[in-house]
Amino acid sequence: MKYSLGEIAKALGATVHGDETLVVTGVNEPAACGPDQLAMAIKPEFAETLADGQAQAAMMWDGADWRAFGLKAAIVAPRPRFAMAGLSGMMDPGQGYGSGVHPSAVVDPSAKIGANVTIGPLAVIGPEAVIGDNSVIGPHCHVGWNARLGAGAVLHSGVKIGARVTIGDRFVAQPGAAIGGDGFSFVTPEPSGVEKARESLGAEGATDAQQWARIHSLGGVTIGNDVEIGANSCIDRGTVRDTFIGNGVKFDNLVQIGHNVVIEDDCLICAQTGVAGSSKIGRGTVLGGQTGISDNLNIGENVITGGGTVVLSNIPAGRVMLGYPAMKMETHIEVYKGLRRLPRLFRDVSLLRKSVSNGESNT
Amino acid sequence: MKYSLGEIAKALGATVHGDETLVVTGVNEPAACGPDQLAMAIKPEFAETLADGQAQAAMMWDGADWRAFGLKAAIVAPRPRFAMAGLSGMMDPGQGYGSGVHPSAVVDPSAKIGANVTIGPLAVIGPEAVIGDNSVIGPHCHVGWNARLGAGAVLHSGVKIGARVTIGDRFVAQPGAAIGGDGFSFVTPEPSGVEKARESLGAEGATDAQQWARIHSLGGVTIGNDVEIGANSCIDRGTVRDTFIGNGVKFDNLVQIGHNVVIEDDCLICAQTGVAGSSKIGRGTVLGGQTGISDNLNIGENVITGGGTVVLSNIPAGRVMLGYPAMKMETHIEVYKGLRRLPRLFRDVSLLRKSVSNGESNT
Amino acid sequence: MKYSLGEIAKALGATVHGDETLVVTGVNEPAACGPDQLAMAIKPEFAETLADGQAQAAMMWDGADWRAFGLKAAIVAPRPRFAMAGLSGMMDPGQGYGSGVHPSAVVDPSAKIGANVTIGPLAVIGPEAVIGDNSVIGPHCHVGWNARLGAGAVLHSGVKIGARVTIGDRFVAQPGAAIGGDGFSFVTPEPSGVEKARESLGAEGATDAQQWARIHSLGGVTIGNDVEIGANSCIDRGTVRDTFIGNGVKFDNLVQIGHNVVIEDDCLICAQTGVAGSSKIGRGTVLGGQTGISDNLNIGENVITGGGTVVLSNIPAGRVMLGYPAMKMETHIEVYKGLRRLPRLFRDVSLLRKSVSNGESNT
Repeated sequence: MKYSLGEIAKALGATVHGDETLVVTGVNEPAACGPDQLAMAIKPEFAETLADGQAQAAMMWDGADWRAFGLKAAIVAPRPRFAMAGLSGMMDPGQGYGSGVHPSAVVDPSAKIGANVTIGPLAVIGPEAVIGDNSVIGPHCHVGWNARLGAGAVLHSGVKIGARVTIGDRFVAQPGAAIGGDGFSFVTPEPSGVEKARESLGAEGATDAQQWARIHSLGGVTIGNDVEIGANSCIDRGTVRDTFIGNGVKFDNLVQIGHNVVIEDDCLICAQTGVAGSSKIGRGTVLGGQTGISDNLNIGENVITGGGTVVLSNIPAGRVMLGYPAMKMETHIEVYKGLRRLPRLFRDVSLLRKSVSNGESNT
Repeated sequence: MKYSLGEIAKALGATVHGDETLVVTGVNEPAACGPDQLAMAIKPEFAETLADGQAQAAMMWDGADWRAFGLKAAIVAPRPRFAMAGLSGMMDPGQGYGSGVHPSAVVDPSAKIGANVTIGPLAVIGPEAVIGDNSVIGPHCHVGWNARLGAGAVLHSGVKIGARVTIGDRFVAQPGAAIGGDGFSFVTPEPSGVEKARESLGAEGATDAQQWARIHSLGGVTIGNDVEIGANSCIDRGTVRDTFIGNGVKFDNLVQIGHNVVIEDDCLICAQTGVAGSSKIGRGTVLGGQTGISDNLNIGENVITGGGTVVLSNIPAGRVMLGYPAMKMETHIEVYKGLRRLPRLFRDVSLLRKSVSNGESNT
Repeated sequence: MKYSLGEIAKALGATVHGDETLVVTGVNEPAACGPDQLAMAIKPEFAETLADGQAQAAMMWDGADWRAFGLKAAIVAPRPRFAMAGLSGMMDPGQGYGSGVHPSAVVDPSAKIGANVTIGPLAVIGPEAVIGDNSVIGPHCHVGWNARLGAGAVLHSGVKIGARVTIGDRFVAQPGAAIGGDGFSFVTPEPSGVEKARESLGAEGATDAQQWARIHSLGGVTIGNDVEIGANSCIDRGTVRDTFIGNGVKFDNLVQIGHNVVIEDDCLICAQTGVAGSSKIGRGTVLGGQTGISDNLNIGENVITGGGTVVLSNIPAGRVMLGYPAMKMETHIEVYKGLRRLPRLFRDVSLLRKSVSNGESNT
């Protein structure tokens, strides 16, 4: 990759100050920059270390005095973090999966492979699968029977797409992601301890020994456009209808999405979060790392959960939640302040009781 | 798949009302049903949407007035959710892995492959491995040296079974499951900070820098009949003896089972649950999603934990538990009610102190 | 494996009592020992079951009266648990991956393969990858473009190493581990609800619908010597610089390490723990199972967290922490004692209020 500052600024809708013909071959942190790298000095505290490196140019905040840092040029964007999205895309050297269908890949003759598709070594494309134009299928990927990938997909190594999974355009899957495993759905011949405990709020859970019978997952998974899924994350197929993921949803690593779940557009689901069967997550919601959503819940639009939040009941739209079980963030902060002062409260009440009982005996 | 209602009812031990010669080719939700699909209208609220679809027949609850919904027939089962297990098994089109041993699979000549076994593309069967009759090994699966799978196994794509793992009949493994990784067992030359902290209940954890030496896992994993394991879940091998999983145990996705763990028959382990080394889970226990069980604990039979429960001590049989750390569910409900009212309690006590100290100064 | 007790004791720096020419072929628990196995009777309670097995020799604690248990010999080590590390290494039969490069493996001609390297069936070694001497690459592993593995690596089946990942000597990776997936880094054109909620501490999270733009991960992952990573665990690449893992760090299964994280030497990271982007973990720290570390935090050296600890702020060196959110372990124990007595406290305060208001009305 080699770009002049002028080319970069044009692509990002940003402004160059200084020498726009200067060419850079990559980006780096200010202190580690070589002379041909663009320094990422998007905040004053980052810029302080420019002198430790050899950068001649930097991406900086609006109003930065770039000359004072000894630079020949600076790119200034109104929201530098957003500009970083475009810049990092230009500079990404990729994974080097090559091009065309590798001779060691096993592609079923009934599969439909689009134009300009890369299929990496030892990938398996099943019968009647469809791979959209310009897609890249990494090594050891499996695309199952009758699964459909839209245009511009990138599957990194060892991704598994099950039968009858339907995915839109520009899908990205990190290594080891598994889409279309069977839902976790088992039933006992007689009502189980769990069913009884839910009805009685915990008073009666135990029950006679019973074996679990499997409910097969007949549905698939339907995924919209511009979805990304993290390494070793899992999305299960639905029981009767498809599990559904809207457009623009991004999943981090080791996320678990149960059967029949619905996730609306533009949600952000952070690492190790789990959403149990049949729950629904409204548009634009952000679930922090290790969030747990119980089954059959309704989470509104634009909800935010902090890390480790355990959600056992519905959440209205727009709420910011934290804790176990989930509370509004400001309630949580107040409650946990109290929790830390709880030992003192016990002492205070104990003293009060003494002074009241003394007071009473005195009267 | 094509079945008459009479055939389905016979297989499920259910009753047909109306035209039992009607043929269906699949199942669907009532509102989405085509004319040749059986509607899943097992509760009155589901049946309300029958009119939005084209179903001519439905599976319904006992006593449902099927004619009132314009149907030609209904299948009625005493426990429809249980009937769904059999019905979904009949209707499952599967993953289309084909039959026989794919020419691209690498099967060691010393492996023993049973009758009627499918081995998918690019699977690897190691030396002296044994695959039982009627098993299906998906693409990219690895069955290691001297591992043994009983009859009727189904391994979905990318499942990894390590050396010397022994598994009973009818095993099902979802994509990416890993059985037989090494246990997480490391030891320092001198007692470590963790050992000290456990002895002193946290008073002293820090210690001089030490390196961790690996304790190799010499044991394997022994798994009973009718076990199912979820996508990207892990079961580690034992240190000296085998990690042990009983009959009928079902694991959801992204579950972690540590070395030397014993899980007795018919347990249900929901997604993202972790059971640390050497703990024992009694028969019929259900661990809710994201439950954590600390190491060396004893969890009784028929215990139920709610989502996100963190278990740091033993649990007697039959308990329903929730919270961090785990409490009896009714205690948890009462405690958390109190937690939310904690800020008010602080205010009340503060007022009391004032009024008592005023009272005292007045007397 | 066949060793005399004398050979074993010499390798471990331990002492033999009795017949040092006795040969053993493996180790076992006392009750399950055959006559040619060494019993692991390193504590008195383990030794009690020696009579149920056929062991002629045992590893025992210092001062054990081995003759009283009917043994012909005993190996005594000053810290038997540490001796187990060396002994288990000697006795480990391994996974039987064979030797040399399997003909089904796909090795790019530009890759540099060291001396005495095993590459298992259907593994893929990408362009310009470097594999150090004496390494073992299991079946279905992928080592990406320009990735570097030091000497003596062991990758178990299905491990994925992304492009430009650099790893030191004696690396061990359990099945399905994924190193070098892209970081989870997305940005909206305008400040998002999460940014607003962080600034306002939760008062305002909701925002207009926006789409997430991807920040590509241009950095790699740098890993030191003697690191081990568990099954299906994930380490993401950095945004600009590399994610960094020091020497001697051990990761359990299903662990998530976000982009730009720094983990210093000799940390132990237990199963299902997550460390979010750009956080730093000091040397010798031990994170218990299911610990969550929020992003951009600084965790000191020799910290210990208990199972399920949720860390939302920095932790000074040497602390032992527990709870959600994390507290010092002794505070947590006191607080949770209070929590269980909370319902009683409410009753006490309610009674106090009555008696005070009665008292007041009486005066």
